[in-house]
Amino acid sequence: MNREFEFLKIISNTLTNPSFLGDDCAYLDEYKLAISKDCLVEDVHFSFSFMTPYEIARKAVLVNISDILASGAKPNYILIGLSGKLDEKFIKEFYLGINDVIEKYNIKLIGGDLVKGDKLSISITILGDYKNRNVSSRKNAKIDYIVATIGEFGSSAKGLEDLKNGLKDNYFIQYHKNPPLFEEITSKIATTVKNPYAMMDSSDGLFDCLYQIALKSKVRLDIDYNLIPKKNDDRNLVLFGGEDYCPVVCLSKEDFNKIDGLIKIGIVKEGKGVYIDNKKAEYRGFKHFE
Amino acid sequence: MNREFEFLKIISNTLTNPSFLGDDCAYLDEYKLAISKDCLVEDVHFSFSFMTPYEIARKAVLVNISDILASGAKPNYILIGLSGKLDEKFIKEFYLGINDVIEKYNIKLIGGDLVKGDKLSISITILGDYKNRNVSSRKNAKIDYIVATIGEFGSSAKGLEDLKNGLKDNYFIQYHKNPPLFEEITSKIATTVKNPYAMMDSSDGLFDCLYQIALKSKVRLDIDYNLIPKKNDDRNLVLFGGEDYCPVVCLSKEDFNKIDGLIKIGIVKEGKGVYIDNKKAEYRGFKHFE
Repeated sequence: MNREFEFLKIISNTLTNPSFLGDDCAYLDEYKLAISKDCLVEDVHFSFSFMTPYEIARKAVLVNISDILASGAKPNYILIGLSGKLDEKFIKEFYLGINDVIEKYNIKLIGGDLVKGDKLSISITILGDYKNRNVSSRKNAKIDYIVATIGEFGSSAKGLEDLKNGLKDNYFIQYHKNPPLFEEITSKIATTVKNPYAMMDSSDGLFDCLYQIALKSKVRLDIDYNLIPKKNDDRNLVLFGGEDYCPVVCLSKEDFNKIDGLIKIGIVKEGKGVYIDNKKAEYRGFKHFE
Repeated sequence: MNREFEFLKIISNTLTNPSFLGDDCAYLDEYKLAISKDCLVEDVHFSFSFMTPYEIARKAVLVNISDILASGAKPNYILIGLSGKLDEKFIKEFYLGINDVIEKYNIKLIGGDLVKGDKLSISITILGDYKNRNVSSRKNAKIDYIVATIGEFGSSAKGLEDLKNGLKDNYFIQYHKNPPLFEEITSKIATTVKNPYAMMDSSDGLFDCLYQIALKSKVRLDIDYNLIPKKNDDRNLVLFGGEDYCPVVCLSKEDFNKIDGLIKIGIVKEGKGVYIDNKKAEYRGFKHFE
């Protein structure tokens, strides 16, 4: 939501003990559990015009797994609340989508709620264990750290654009509907790095990750556009298109060298903001479906 | 939702490893954490005609705390997702309601999500710790156990009826808007009982609790209507009115005798179903607002 920052400030000012705010996951250190909550609403985050209940369910879970992976934790439990015009056929298709993902990632569905309503609203809470793992925080980028990633940027947004243009299926549409996650590399990072690191998933676009990390870590990120992995040439989609769910990481050189597969795209410097090819780039929010 | 049973069966049949279903909370034994998720939807569970954003928020949190208390755990963390027509004024009032309850119960708000939508939809995930506590399950009632409770039944439903009849304020309306919880006694039970016990909160009415426990424990519950604590004489509201959030407990005589304040209302017998004054009572679902 565009006004989320503003609202979070109001919430923070309203609470006697504001103890959240910051990363996508909250870390419960006494249990070594990361926890994240996400709400997905019809015609805001997804549309039945483009995706089936199976596909919507699958992606809703993937998106949440991605948040846990970016924290460094290993997803283990999920709770799903649904409100909408629910019927047997929908429930069956939807939970087939859920099942296929949670089975693959060895996650247990442990609860939820079913409520009638107008438009479909999906609320997901996911937990992940981080015993013997280092967790990330967007506050952790430090000067001389490497900015690195894996995956491809802009592909999901290109797929959404293609769907809106009436195309039915192609590589990018598949990427949009069923984005790959990078559990192996995020696990490797969380179990290997020695120094604090920042990691986010690019749910709201590459630029958003870079911007948030630069802001919270009080540093400047210098990115070389040509180094960004991508399969399409639309600079706008590559930088600002969302829903790629690629991990974007800032970590020490020493740690970077231990992680095979990570692609260096830039460097952390003293200063503020995000620079692409030495030119300061401005923040633009990403809107999902609408 | 009336068809929730039916839908849960479909979900259970669709999942490769159905590991949930049963109690209001899921128990994560490796962490000693109870977790529960609840969705509250405008014009299904509440209405702005009768309650302010502050009151709706306060009750939404209370309802969820009640689920954790009935599990035997101590609530400690909460996540709140909101979708709806959100603006500054609404957010401020809503989170004042949240704050007043979480401060009282020493619960931390650790995350959530804000999404735009039409009608207000509140999704809450709450966690509770059960280290050094026994947790309840509706499967745990055994023959010769005491059926006991505390609080008053039908008061909340009477309040809702009064609101619908145009009344603005009275004892029952206050009970409906701001139901008392019974943390002291649920904590005492969870830290004192030696034998397995069943406990539920009467969110869907007293009869629903009795019915669910009888069903899951495969026993018969015999209730003496006159022993039920109540402040209004409408038998229908006392038995079937929801949103009282009183703990309904089946526990051994030995354990019952250790807990001051619990009121005996019946006894567990061999058989099936719920008998009120020796007459079998039939299940009727409870609808919240609508």
